[in-house]
Amino acid sequence: MGTNRRSFLKLSGLAGIGLLTGCQQQEKGTAETHLDHIRQQASKKYTAAFNMSGYAAPKIDTVRVGFIGVGNRGSAAVERMSQIGGVVINGICDVRAEKATEAKARIKTSGHPAKIYAGEDEDWKKMCQEDEYDLIYIATHWKLHAEMAIYAMEHGKHVALEIPAATTVEDCWRLVQTSEKTKKHCVMLENCCYDYFELLTLNLARQGFFGDIVHCEGAYIHDILNSFFDEKKRYDFWRLKENASRNGNLYPTHGVGPICQVLKVNRGNKMEYMSSMSSKDFMINEKAKEMAKTDKRFEEYVDKPFRGNINISNILTNSGSTIMLQHDVTSPRPYSRIHMVSGTKAFAQKYPLPGKIAIGHEDFMGAEEMTKLEQQYTPGIVNKIGQLAKEIGGHGGMDFMMDWRLIDCLRNGLPVDMDVYDAASWSVIGPLSEWSVANGSLPIEIPDFTNGNWKENNVHDINLIAGGTTNVLK
Amino acid sequence: MGTNRRSFLKLSGLAGIGLLTGCQQQEKGTAETHLDHIRQQASKKYTAAFNMSGYAAPKIDTVRVGFIGVGNRGSAAVERMSQIGGVVINGICDVRAEKATEAKARIKTSGHPAKIYAGEDEDWKKMCQEDEYDLIYIATHWKLHAEMAIYAMEHGKHVALEIPAATTVEDCWRLVQTSEKTKKHCVMLENCCYDYFELLTLNLARQGFFGDIVHCEGAYIHDILNSFFDEKKRYDFWRLKENASRNGNLYPTHGVGPICQVLKVNRGNKMEYMSSMSSKDFMINEKAKEMAKTDKRFEEYVDKPFRGNINISNILTNSGSTIMLQHDVTSPRPYSRIHMVSGTKAFAQKYPLPGKIAIGHEDFMGAEEMTKLEQQYTPGIVNKIGQLAKEIGGHGGMDFMMDWRLIDCLRNGLPVDMDVYDAASWSVIGPLSEWSVANGSLPIEIPDFTNGNWKENNVHDINLIAGGTTNVLK
Repeated sequence: MGTNRRSFLKLSGLAGIGLLTGCQQQEKGTAETHLDHIRQQASKKYTAAFNMSGYAAPKIDTVRVGFIGVGNRGSAAVERMSQIGGVVINGICDVRAEKATEAKARIKTSGHPAKIYAGEDEDWKKMCQEDEYDLIYIATHWKLHAEMAIYAMEHGKHVALEIPAATTVEDCWRLVQTSEKTKKHCVMLENCCYDYFELLTLNLARQGFFGDIVHCEGAYIHDILNSFFDEKKRYDFWRLKENASRNGNLYPTHGVGPICQVLKVNRGNKMEYMSSMSSKDFMINEKAKEMAKTDKRFEEYVDKPFRGNINISNILTNSGSTIMLQHDVTSPRPYSRIHMVSGTKAFAQKYPLPGKIAIGHEDFMGAEEMTKLEQQYTPGIVNKIGQLAKEIGGHGGMDFMMDWRLIDCLRNGLPVDMDVYDAASWSVIGPLSEWSVANGSLPIEIPDFTNGNWKENNVHDINLIAGGTTNVLK
Repeated sequence: MGTNRRSFLKLSGLAGIGLLTGCQQQEKGTAETHLDHIRQQASKKYTAAFNMSGYAAPKIDTVRVGFIGVGNRGSAAVERMSQIGGVVINGICDVRAEKATEAKARIKTSGHPAKIYAGEDEDWKKMCQEDEYDLIYIATHWKLHAEMAIYAMEHGKHVALEIPAATTVEDCWRLVQTSEKTKKHCVMLENCCYDYFELLTLNLARQGFFGDIVHCEGAYIHDILNSFFDEKKRYDFWRLKENASRNGNLYPTHGVGPICQVLKVNRGNKMEYMSSMSSKDFMINEKAKEMAKTDKRFEEYVDKPFRGNINISNILTNSGSTIMLQHDVTSPRPYSRIHMVSGTKAFAQKYPLPGKIAIGHEDFMGAEEMTKLEQQYTPGIVNKIGQLAKEIGGHGGMDFMMDWRLIDCLRNGLPVDMDVYDAASWSVIGPLSEWSVANGSLPIEIPDFTNGNWKENNVHDINLIAGGTTNVLK
């Protein structure tokens, strides 16, 4: 019998008194405090110091970029950014000097000083303190994201940071408050919002093709279990540590990001509450035991409270639409982000199929009709640089479109597509799911990081591509 | 803001005290009593009078069948049953005399007296009271199923009844208690358990192909909105009435039945608790308003508390495996029961694709490998009568396999594949989902209808097909 079952029984007996006090949580000590803290932070209400939604920061003709964390993901970003006009890469920081040097070598164009910051744990602070940067681009492991982003904004820099923006509810609030106080953008790099099918469905939704949107689904289902145990791929086994200490949807934003855009979350709609359930762990501990047989470094992981292999979270939005999210990074099954949009007039789903659209219940559109639809509804950004992005690559082009759009917004003084409220509300699903799972799937309120401004905020329209003046260097 | 959102807010404020008292429910009067009753009945514990799991009733050489309710579904069953050896159709009952006569005309073979019972509301009781029947086959609308099944068992008849077996928790308990007391089988006619891909995945699960099973999904997603308003298809608009008064997963068994078999629920495993969420209604009331413009009969339905269009229910089982179920009968999207089985070694999913299997995360098997796998793991029942069933038809053959298997078990004195505990635990998801939805997705315990016997009960093995002596008449 799993711990969440025990929690549920305890809960039933206690008539749910624990809802506010957290007394039915199953782990004592640190874990209990952690769960208490989630609940407490989730129910906080603040007053917005400033509304960053739709905020147009002053134009920056040449965007001076500094990178922190240039492992797999960050070094690829260095390469991509070096191909965007109006960008100067002024610095690269990593605790591993060789990684910083390797990343610098990936720069494709001339004119980038790319000063190296390496050797000291807090070198990244030096970079943030200097005047030579407009944008700090953060691609370290999860736990450092929020601290670095907050520090960078406090030192007058816009921030782009990898997913998730934060791993605690408190840090989500701190990101919001810092962005509002400093009027600096805090853009979470949710690349899946720029995948071609996701962009197509967003445009279809905006044009009313789906009618009212009843239900959406998203996921991160990707068998990466082996990489947890590969230090080259995951510095200091950071992802193994995350999976050994937190139980929920640890990586929600690939799924929920594109869906929140479709559902206008934070701009006329909001996520109200969620309930989350996890299976037990059938795989990670088995793998840890197997690895520990030949490698002593893994002995400390055996019998850790590993995350249940699959997590399912249901979310109700203010519009009455539902979201189902899944997370599974250990099961041997084909990759999926689901990406489903189900409306009163039409339906779209990407995985396990290639992207498909149906109008009515008979069947999905055939290839010819689909091509026609894609042509008719091609989003502006895809028309503008979709083909170039495909040639440059990075998850099929979406990474490049994301970076290009960010730079184009900064250079033209446009509101960013994904603001700090998106970063916070997409990331907060992680810690909230931990709480719900630990409490036998009890529902939990999703904080309104806009502090009420969601009612008046306008839809950012990714498809209009005002600006669009930034060149691609090849 | 939907009523479930209001319930959730109220609940948060009250610290969930309502969990036991039901005080946070959103509707007063009848609805409140209904929800109270669900919660109260869900927490009942009894002692089993007798264990019907694995029970072999005395052999019946010729199974004398009486049908109650011969609309679309029942009349097709009459035709199918008339093609199974060792069956005599002794009677047909329907409140509409013409339906009974039409059903009689569908009998394909000779030797069936098929006495007509029609004209009086309680004619079905006369049939149950008579000695000329071994099996009463019930295909009326949902609300009558349990009452008729209980009455038939109390009059010494085995029962086969359409899905769901009951619409209330209390009636699920009554079915169990009556079957135990009378030692009569109560078989719910969940035809999807006999669909070819579902049978294949069951056999694969039994042979260990999936490894440990981490997660399963099932659904009933079928756009049948127009039929709610068609009296020819739905006598007395019974399905419109269900959708206008209950909010949850009203039709869970197509999805959950085959999955519960895979997960050995009631035979070594059990469903522990569930949480359920529904969108608001975007479609049914709109349709009712449109219909009422030209047809006064629909005026009374305008602004009824219609069921939210999609329902998502998450279930945790004792083995630590999770189940996700969906219900949507109004959205314009392709039909789906999902039918997903995700294990530590392999993965299967049927919809929206044709049935596919994957070993590992690279991709699904190709056609050739799939054919080989299907040949290797063809279940016994499919080898025996799969081809014949396809020729006879009925949802592609599954209806016929289901009926044939039921008769073969009765004739050979075998335990039935789906017993009264299955009927109760698969059907109870309906009312439990209503309670959870009305209470802001609060989790609710799933009753153990086996009263503890699930720990010792053995897996029924649908694949072995001991018996198999019953002829198909063509």
